[in-house]
Amino acid sequence: MRKSSLFKKMNIYVDLAVEAHELLRGETGREVSGVVMQKEEIGPTSVTTITIINKKGEKVLGRPKGNYITIDAPHIKDNNPQQHKELAEILARHLAKLLKLNEDTSILIVGLGNWQATPDALGPKVVEKVLVTRHLFHYTPEDVRGKMRKVSAISPGVLGLTGIETAEVIHGLVQHVKPDYVIAIDSLAAGDLSRIGTTIQLADTGINPGSGIGNHRKGLTEETLGCKVIAIGVPTVVNAAVIAHRTVEELFSQMESEPSLAQIYTEENEQVLINIMKKALSPFQDSLMVTPKEVDELIDNSSRIIAKALNLSIHPEITDYN
Amino acid sequence: MRKSSLFKKMNIYVDLAVEAHELLRGETGREVSGVVMQKEEIGPTSVTTITIINKKGEKVLGRPKGNYITIDAPHIKDNNPQQHKELAEILARHLAKLLKLNEDTSILIVGLGNWQATPDALGPKVVEKVLVTRHLFHYTPEDVRGKMRKVSAISPGVLGLTGIETAEVIHGLVQHVKPDYVIAIDSLAAGDLSRIGTTIQLADTGINPGSGIGNHRKGLTEETLGCKVIAIGVPTVVNAAVIAHRTVEELFSQMESEPSLAQIYTEENEQVLINIMKKALSPFQDSLMVTPKEVDELIDNSSRIIAKALNLSIHPEITDYN
Amino acid sequence: MRKSSLFKKMNIYVDLAVEAHELLRGETGREVSGVVMQKEEIGPTSVTTITIINKKGEKVLGRPKGNYITIDAPHIKDNNPQQHKELAEILARHLAKLLKLNEDTSILIVGLGNWQATPDALGPKVVEKVLVTRHLFHYTPEDVRGKMRKVSAISPGVLGLTGIETAEVIHGLVQHVKPDYVIAIDSLAAGDLSRIGTTIQLADTGINPGSGIGNHRKGLTEETLGCKVIAIGVPTVVNAAVIAHRTVEELFSQMESEPSLAQIYTEENEQVLINIMKKALSPFQDSLMVTPKEVDELIDNSSRIIAKALNLSIHPEITDYN
Amino acid sequence: MRKSSLFKKMNIYVDLAVEAHELLRGETGREVSGVVMQKEEIGPTSVTTITIINKKGEKVLGRPKGNYITIDAPHIKDNNPQQHKELAEILARHLAKLLKLNEDTSILIVGLGNWQATPDALGPKVVEKVLVTRHLFHYTPEDVRGKMRKVSAISPGVLGLTGIETAEVIHGLVQHVKPDYVIAIDSLAAGDLSRIGTTIQLADTGINPGSGIGNHRKGLTEETLGCKVIAIGVPTVVNAAVIAHRTVEELFSQMESEPSLAQIYTEENEQVLINIMKKALSPFQDSLMVTPKEVDELIDNSSRIIAKALNLSIHPEITDYN
Repeated sequence: MRKSSLFKKMNIYVDLAVEAHELLRGETGREVSGVVMQKEEIGPTSVTTITIINKKGEKVLGRPKGNYITIDAPHIKDNNPQQHKELAEILARHLAKLLKLNEDTSILIVGLGNWQATPDALGPKVVEKVLVTRHLFHYTPEDVRGKMRKVSAISPGVLGLTGIETAEVIHGLVQHVKPDYVIAIDSLAAGDLSRIGTTIQLADTGINPGSGIGNHRKGLTEETLGCKVIAIGVPTVVNAAVIAHRTVEELFSQMESEPSLAQIYTEENEQVLINIMKKALSPFQDSLMVTPKEVDELIDNSSRIIAKALNLSIHPEITDYN
Repeated sequence: MRKSSLFKKMNIYVDLAVEAHELLRGETGREVSGVVMQKEEIGPTSVTTITIINKKGEKVLGRPKGNYITIDAPHIKDNNPQQHKELAEILARHLAKLLKLNEDTSILIVGLGNWQATPDALGPKVVEKVLVTRHLFHYTPEDVRGKMRKVSAISPGVLGLTGIETAEVIHGLVQHVKPDYVIAIDSLAAGDLSRIGTTIQLADTGINPGSGIGNHRKGLTEETLGCKVIAIGVPTVVNAAVIAHRTVEELFSQMESEPSLAQIYTEENEQVLINIMKKALSPFQDSLMVTPKEVDELIDNSSRIIAKALNLSIHPEITDYN
Repeated sequence: MRKSSLFKKMNIYVDLAVEAHELLRGETGREVSGVVMQKEEIGPTSVTTITIINKKGEKVLGRPKGNYITIDAPHIKDNNPQQHKELAEILARHLAKLLKLNEDTSILIVGLGNWQATPDALGPKVVEKVLVTRHLFHYTPEDVRGKMRKVSAISPGVLGLTGIETAEVIHGLVQHVKPDYVIAIDSLAAGDLSRIGTTIQLADTGINPGSGIGNHRKGLTEETLGCKVIAIGVPTVVNAAVIAHRTVEELFSQMESEPSLAQIYTEENEQVLINIMKKALSPFQDSLMVTPKEVDELIDNSSRIIAKALNLSIHPEITDYN
Repeated sequence: MRKSSLFKKMNIYVDLAVEAHELLRGETGREVSGVVMQKEEIGPTSVTTITIINKKGEKVLGRPKGNYITIDAPHIKDNNPQQHKELAEILARHLAKLLKLNEDTSILIVGLGNWQATPDALGPKVVEKVLVTRHLFHYTPEDVRGKMRKVSAISPGVLGLTGIETAEVIHGLVQHVKPDYVIAIDSLAAGDLSRIGTTIQLADTGINPGSGIGNHRKGLTEETLGCKVIAIGVPTVVNAAVIAHRTVEELFSQMESEPSLAQIYTEENEQVLINIMKKALSPFQDSLMVTPKEVDELIDNSSRIIAKALNLSIHPEITDYN
């Protein structure tokens, strides 16, 4: 039975391009057409760049053309400041490649997600920590010009708090602030437990409908906003259906010698399995998340790493802002 | 020496129309032309409505035509829930008069001010507590239509936090949300200590440049936003210059029998006094605020009263939301 | 295969006495010795009181003698203020039965859990909202005596934030404050998804080691603290192993006609199933929680209901504090 | 008229020893007996150490024997990360001199003050940012022993929030945690505006009754707690009476050529002036604070500097924790 098809039918959106790609490759056993993958190792950290180069790649991976950079860093979860600093520097280097900065570049950082629900609070926490400078250009332009870029930052909240779609808030803002780049930060939902708190994804393709924990219904892309949109995310949850699915997989792999079971575990019975998993998750439907107890530390660590990387890549002249 | 002229020269903006009016009346001893005042007593609470009816009134009071309703309620500061409830009901009644509601009315509540500085956090605190309903009309219109009005609510932050002028954020939002009313909540600066935590001001004239603790540089008015703008505020601070001024006043009133002092205390010497006060406030210029130690309780009490009044006046069918 | 034995082996602690009781009754099909159960229906709300009357009951249910009152209230999750008020009144009535109040009774309310992790933040949120009065007895005894009881309230934080065991903080406090009652509020872990956000548990037996999301290692009981300890909790999560277990259960119930499967699903194979579930949850061990996306609303609603119930039952003379 | 006597009569407590000392020296024009002062300049920063060496010194300065180290650093207010880092290092060096650390030293950091009132939130903000390690010694002693010291940290809240005296909470904790040092962090009230946000005070004499914005009524000292108590504070407010007093001073210094005024401004008339100032501050008594509008930035900057200095001095082996 195909995991990718099953996830689709159970409304499990996998935010990481690298996971979507692994899913496909694992199932077909060959290269995915229209997609190029590159790997790089830096000490304990590995960086995988997946580039979707054409329509075909867009279709199979279900996301738009562009670069999806995944930093695998199991030590986000550890409380090792030296490693966090190195991680921030790696992220900053990749960010710097996506940003074409000059003296007048203006950047709007958007912290997506719900600050009242810890697993979804990555974006707002980064916004709290990032260096905001746009207003200084009004007051003391001589002090900042050449040393800093114009940065504004806002956390628009979520629909349940404000009654307004995130995209509505951001569209309105972009029309007034007129940034060259929007950088959107978001908590992500992974397809596998091992991704929680161990991965940073960076993409130059914007935020797409259906992604993020809060399932934004409208996208934030260059097409809709009229400026480049860069997305940074860290998986902090998996959908609970992932646990149900893994349990089924483990059960069948354990019992594969049983012919009667092998028979059940076939394409034809996909709907049976979906029903079993749905029952296991009732009375909730798609809205259960699985998250580690220490999610507050995870959010704290990753928001510090991302804020530091943003400061480093946007204001390379300022060396010591934490 | 005229207090009104002195305040202007020292950059002390008085947010309360009722204070501006008292200042003028006190100095001239007669009715202010172009301005109508009405008073009403409800138990321990008195309500003063100042209506600026023409250009002349606009000029002398330094604010636009419209209604400025001041509720004098010394018991905001007390922890008496029964009195707070009555106060919320009085405020709700006056709000209801300014809002022409029908089934489809859409209201955007804006919490002005800085949530990280307690005396300036009234607006954001009200937004946290108010009932937000606009998104329910997408999901369960049959449940809410006829029982609730569409309410969205946002706290845009302040320039120092976001790098974006509040007015820029709100203009962008209004273009997308297209509300019939914007209701802006703000912490105010009073001209007199006795106003702190004892007064609620309600106006149908919007927020004007230079008002509020954060001194918004651009206004939020029907003219700029294209919809009715109602403002609600509570004084939580006075500018420290007010203390310096009161000290001078008290000193001279104490010593008025001294002819040499009487001589000093004249129009001609206004600049001398301004210099004295400025020295007393150095090295700070206009940025010192005076606030009670218990400002957190004051913000907590007044935000609950205002949120309750908003819920009562906007959704009169819902009787028990706190 | 016994669910109760399986849960034990997988380190799944079930906080609700009513669940532990159901588990046992379901498996044995008869009354549990040493335990008395009573049910009461009030409109849409049902209240189940489980009383453990002797050592035998203590042993089978794995918790100390005393009363465990479970309020089943599916409408905690709904945003219906009228129903929340009724729920608060029901809880207040049961609380009042456990508290023997006189004019001088002193109560210490303890908000257990981690305010930085939303699903675990119920206790701290209640402490924020509850009426604190103990200091008023120093300042204005004549105003409060006879109208209020002495209430102090604190959120001690969790080990990861403070480096101090919760029980150490509370023991120290109790020695100084010398309350007649400690009321401890905590987010709970349920054994079944249907309990999340639909149940309030009230017990007069204190908090026991191993309970709560944060798995307190030391108990808070009359024995250790020297005063009566009442516990109030709402389930906000289940351990992720519960999802894995339910998936297995659903799978087997679906396929029970298969004789080869029926054979697998027996006592002897318990360890096989435990291994399957553990693999499904790796690389995490016991530390994954499952929680609804809207956990912030759940915490907000339940903390308001509990704070209101505390105020109503402790200060019956004050009728309108929200 | 003596400022020191006037302040006393108006209940203005001056938290900084260096100010108390200046007051005395300014008035008497000679060395203060029982007190030794030393000065050191490090770039833009000057460090003044005042040591009270005997009973006589205790009496004149109104505080106990010991060292009061004042770091004058006008750049706390600037957003210059390089200067903040240098400041943290200077503070860390002086802290290290007061702490006799060995491998097993245990330190309890106490964040005094009210987290809900920004000017009073310095202590709680430092506690949020400091590295807490005591619990790691239970779990992974081999990883931390020799590299870290045992640090626990708590913000006990204020009387108005908890109903419990801060000293009661801390006494109870110290009995259980048994630290070698308590380090208490607090927002301070200065005697002069120029001290706000420009000064850090470090003392090895504990916290004394009547000090701090919240006016702790009971002290935290070696005598009461049974362990060394170090206090770190930053002035974030002045009492509003300071503004009134400065206004009077400026007025008289401006007009000193007036013989009639010179006459008024004498010891005999002290009470007249006190009455004038009290009227200028009515209807408030001692509870008005004056604070800059940007107090949130001040608290943010100084809490980061202090947390960094604590980490640096307590765990010198860990070089890069921010």
